[in-house]
Order: sequence, then C-alpha cells, then structure tokens
Amino acid sequence: MNAKPTRSRDASPSSLLLAEAAQAPDVVARLLDANRKPLERLVAELERRPPAFAATVARGSSDNAADFARYCLESALGLVTASVAPSTVTRYGADLRLENGLLLAISQSGESPDLLAVVEQARRRGAITVAIVNREDSPLAALCAHCLPMQAGAERSTGATKSFIASLAAILALVAAWGRDAELGRALHLLPDLLRQAHDVDGSPAVPLFAGARSAFVLGRGRSYPIAREIALKLKELAVLHAEAFSAAEVMHGPLALLSPGFPVLAVGAADATEEGLRDAMLALRGHGAIVAGASASPLLLQAADIPVALPAAPHPALDPIVAAQAAYGLVHAVALARGHDPDAPRHITKVTKTL
Amino acid sequence: MNAKPTRSRDASPSSLLLAEAAQAPDVVARLLDANRKPLERLVAELERRPPAFAATVARGSSDNAADFARYCLESALGLVTASVAPSTVTRYGADLRLENGLLLAISQSGESPDLLAVVEQARRRGAITVAIVNREDSPLAALCAHCLPMQAGAERSTGATKSFIASLAAILALVAAWGRDAELGRALHLLPDLLRQAHDVDGSPAVPLFAGARSAFVLGRGRSYPIAREIALKLKELAVLHAEAFSAAEVMHGPLALLSPGFPVLAVGAADATEEGLRDAMLALRGHGAIVAGASASPLLLQAADIPVALPAAPHPALDPIVAAQAAYGLVHAVALARGHDPDAPRHITKVTKTL
Repeated sequence: MNAKPTRSRDASPSSLLLAEAAQAPDVVARLLDANRKPLERLVAELERRPPAFAATVARGSSDNAADFARYCLESALGLVTASVAPSTVTRYGADLRLENGLLLAISQSGESPDLLAVVEQARRRGAITVAIVNREDSPLAALCAHCLPMQAGAERSTGATKSFIASLAAILALVAAWGRDAELGRALHLLPDLLRQAHDVDGSPAVPLFAGARSAFVLGRGRSYPIAREIALKLKELAVLHAEAFSAAEVMHGPLALLSPGFPVLAVGAADATEEGLRDAMLALRGHGAIVAGASASPLLLQAADIPVALPAAPHPALDPIVAAQAAYGLVHAVALARGHDPDAPRHITKVTKTL
Repeated sequence: MNAKPTRSRDASPSSLLLAEAAQAPDVVARLLDANRKPLERLVAELERRPPAFAATVARGSSDNAADFARYCLESALGLVTASVAPSTVTRYGADLRLENGLLLAISQSGESPDLLAVVEQARRRGAITVAIVNREDSPLAALCAHCLPMQAGAERSTGATKSFIASLAAILALVAAWGRDAELGRALHLLPDLLRQAHDVDGSPAVPLFAGARSAFVLGRGRSYPIAREIALKLKELAVLHAEAFSAAEVMHGPLALLSPGFPVLAVGAADATEEGLRDAMLALRGHGAIVAGASASPLLLQAADIPVALPAAPHPALDPIVAAQAAYGLVHAVALARGHDPDAPRHITKVTKTL
C-alpha cells in the first residue's frame, strides 16, 4: 500500500485497472473504424423509419453510458430518450409500446437476462434495436437487429474502464453519423490522441482531498453529469469512498445540507454552455465550506476550483466528458491506494452480475 | 434537541414537517375529488391523440415523483416515459421532438424557469402538456393545457411532504382514469385512510440504526425505488446523513464495496412481484454485514429484515410506495432529532430554488 499520493501511473505499474484504461485510446481508434459500415446500415434504417423517441436499457457503468446517450441524443438530435427500468418488463409484466422507438441496449458482456427480456419485447413490437456491446458473440448482439461493437477486447478488471470509454465513443459516432455532423465526426478521430493525453494527466494534487474523506460529492452538468455518476460509482467500488453524483442544478436542493468545512467535491465540466451553471455551483459549495477539485479544460472552471486539474482541450465540447472519464481512472486508482484498497480486487464484488 | 429516539409524533408535536405531513390524507381526499373533471378532459384528449411516449420534467422531490410516474406509466400502460433534463433545452438549445409525446411537468411552486422553458417548447411542438402543480395560480399551471392540482394548500416546511404525497396520488389517479382501471380507482379512495394509519406507524425501533451512522443506503425496487430516492434525499436534507438510494438490482454492482459490519440499510418494498428480488438483495447485504431495517406490508420483506417496520396493507400494490413515503416522514424526523438536527430548519437550504 502506498499512502503517499504520487503520480497515478507510477504508483502501481502492474495495475490491471490502469493497464486496461491505457488501452482505451487504441480501442476507440479501432471501434471508429469497425463501426463505419454498421453505422451506415443503421442510419439508413433510421432515415427510412425515423423513430419518435429513443429508449435505453443497461446496468451499472453501462447505464451511466446510457445516460450520456440520453444527453447526446436529446441535445444534438432533439430525440427524447427514456431509460427503461428492466423490472417493468421482468417483474410487472409490462408490454412496452416500443413500436415507434429506437431501443439502445448497452452492455459489456451482452449476457444480462433482464436486458435480453426488454430487447425481445422491443423486437416483437417492431422497434429498431441496437446493441452497443463488447462481446460480439453474445446473446445481446445476436438478438439486436444492429450491433455497434465496442472493440475493447477482453476486459478482466472488475472496474470497467475501456469498455465504458468505448460505449461513450460509439454513442458519439452514432450521433455524428445520424446527424450528418461532419465537425463532430472529424473531432472523433482526434479522440484517441486526446485520451492518451488524458491518461497522462497528473491528478495527484487532488488525491489528499479524498484520501481521508468519509463522504464526497461528484458534480457535473449536462453531458458531464453521467460521467460524474460513473466516477462516483468507481470511487465507491474501488476506493470504498461514499461518493455521490449530483447535477449542479440538483445539488443546491437537499444535498447541500451535508456540507461542512472541508467537505470534498470533485467537479467535472466541459468547456461549453454548461460552464457558468457549474461554476456558480462550485462557488456556492465553496461558500458553504466545501473544498472543490475541478477537472476540466475550461479556464472558467479551473479558476473556480480550489484544486484545478487541467484536462486536454478537445476540438468539440461533446468529447470533453470522455476525456474527463479517461483522466478520472488515474485519480480513482490513486485515491484507492491512498485509502489502503487494491483497485484490482474490490470488496464483495464479482465481475458479471446477472439480474432478472 | 432530543437525542433519545422516541415515538416520532410525540418527539416534537410542534414540528412543521410532521404537521404538514399529517395533512396529506385530507389533501389526497380533496385532490381525488377536485381532479375528476380535469382528468376526464385530459383522458378524452389522450384517447383522441394517443401519445407515442411520455416525458417528465421536474426538480428535487418532484423529480422523484416523476420517476414514480415513469414506473407507473410504463408498468400499467406500457407507455415509455423519459425524464427530460432541462439543461438540454436551457443550455444546449435542444429543440426536443415532443410532438408525439405527453409532457408531464411536476412542481409544487410552478415557478421554476427551466421547467417553463421545456413546457414552452413542448407546447410549440404540439405535445399534450400536463402540470401536476400545487400553486394553481402559477406560471406553470397557466402554461400547460391541462392542470391536475395537488390541493395541498400552502406548504411552508422546507422539506416537502404533503405535496410529494399529493403528486404520487395524482399520478395514480391519472393512471387509473386513462387505463380505465376501476380496481385501482376504488383502491385510491381508500388511500386517505391508509395514509392516516401510515402516519401513525411507529418507526422508533429503526432510529438507533441511523442515529450515529456516517452513511446509509435506502433500497427499493420497481415502483418503490423512487420513494427510496425521496427518503434518501430527506435523510440528507433534514437528518444530515449521507443516505443514497439504490435499486435492489444496482446495489449488487459497485455500491456493495461500501458495506462493512453494521452498515445501515433501509429497505422499502411493496407486496408485489418485486418482493423476491428485494428480499434477495436484503439478505445479500446482510450477508456482507449490513443491518437492514425493512419498511413494508409484505410478510416476506418484514421477515428478511433485521428491524421490521410493518406498514398497513394496501388493497392495490401500486399504493404501497405512497404508504411507505408517508410512514417515512416520522422516521426521518426522529432520525434528524436523534442526530441533533432540527428538521424544520435544514442547513444551508432555502425553499424555492430557481434553476435556469
């Protein structure tokens, strides 16, 4: 165990978590290439039968990626996007009226029976079904009419990294293709290089803030909020820290009561129209005694933080959250070590959780 | 301050929070009556122009009520229901394709500018717009084509109680009317009496579990999950306890790592098809050292708890979550007092939060 905060990559060069996270840039390069044809076929069908809405179905980290899909589909394409709770189908026996919808199922393993139950219903109803999945030989890939492979290779770490990054990239590739957004398409091809820079970001100044904490908030807004959720999940799972994610809008309601002097907050924000709202929330939390680490490429947000962690600037703000997720793995890893936990062997957890 | 856990209603007879919570049964009786005509008119329009999907927009406690609407509309009517993040409209300038949708805006005050921005867009697009709102003279009520009043009267407590219960009841009244579900309609008329019994439930055996806790989980499944979210929000806001809600399906992923011997968990569950999944999660958490208080009318769930808190049995399982919410106010109040906080004066918080 290493209780002294050090540069994350040096702290444990043999870490499976960081080794897999380091593969994410190559995974993204591969998936952008491999998904060109599947996306052409999918977009052709989406243009032939434009869906009235989208729905996602996913669990765990993949559900955080699904939430990113919601923000992207809504903000870029105006497509209202629901998150289907599998229990409505598997427990309440609901017959979901998905016939006018696009159903997006996101899963690393592609095996979860409750996801399969929702997709089966969507197929029967005539929805356009799409799997964003890593295991291309999985039941989920077989069941969906369209498959966008993550191309992440075997993921052995309990904490998903490269498959999460891959999901986010696949979602943006879909948005760029469907929206004929050449600017976003070009920006995506710079993502692998940005992710390499993000992996090298030195988050160590922020580690002491979380090393001895009992509780923490992870703050996001807009497209960055799902990444805040994923970082909070990772801090719980790997660093045994009760971190909870809030949007900058919601944190000013009840959660504010938890603040006391020194309360640790990590804010992740993009250099886009959500900047000012997030900045205001960061300053308000600081006003109530919180110490705020800010991971961003936005000068406004870096300035608003007690502990700024500068991220590489992306050519399109929709990429900022993916860059933040990649940079966070080093921080989470270092916080876990500083708290005396092995991020490669999280407590009580096994890799595949099948829910029905 | 009263640090000794006592019967909640007796602990502080002058509590504004409990006084307003005690009004909920009469509020519900009033709203069922007052909404008969508005619901007839709304259902007539929904049958004339059946929406392809629903979308909700809300903040804070009202957003937890909106999540209850999602579960109810999906499970009872098969209507896929999205939660719109206002920031997609107010920050990213999205033009949401709501023309085939039902938009449900839920708010006590009816004043939040970001909700209004989404509703304005929905109106322009031709969506069927419905406000579930307490202040009938509010901008939100004026803007929506349909208004289902909460009939809660003035709500002065910072912690919403009767307006939250009213939202849930209004949602079920809509589901019963639209689905021509006479059984649910009849059951709803028994809700005021059930709520009176729920208000009298003695949660004091569970208070010591949370009195000295640093962190806690609130567990739900299906329609009870949004209520778990609301209880966790109340525990943060009023009892200054970092409580986080999880569905019984998601808790078995990363959050499990936080468990250590004595970790406090509150499970709220209905006597319906979600029972067994929730029971399994409760037992699994206990297997990892958690101490589980279970608030339910289900014998299966009461048996699975270390500390059972029996709730009155409802004639329809869709009512169980509302009964649980009502019963939780006494528990939250007692936990707040036991932790040395005044639930009528939460830290840092003001009643109306306007977000744009």
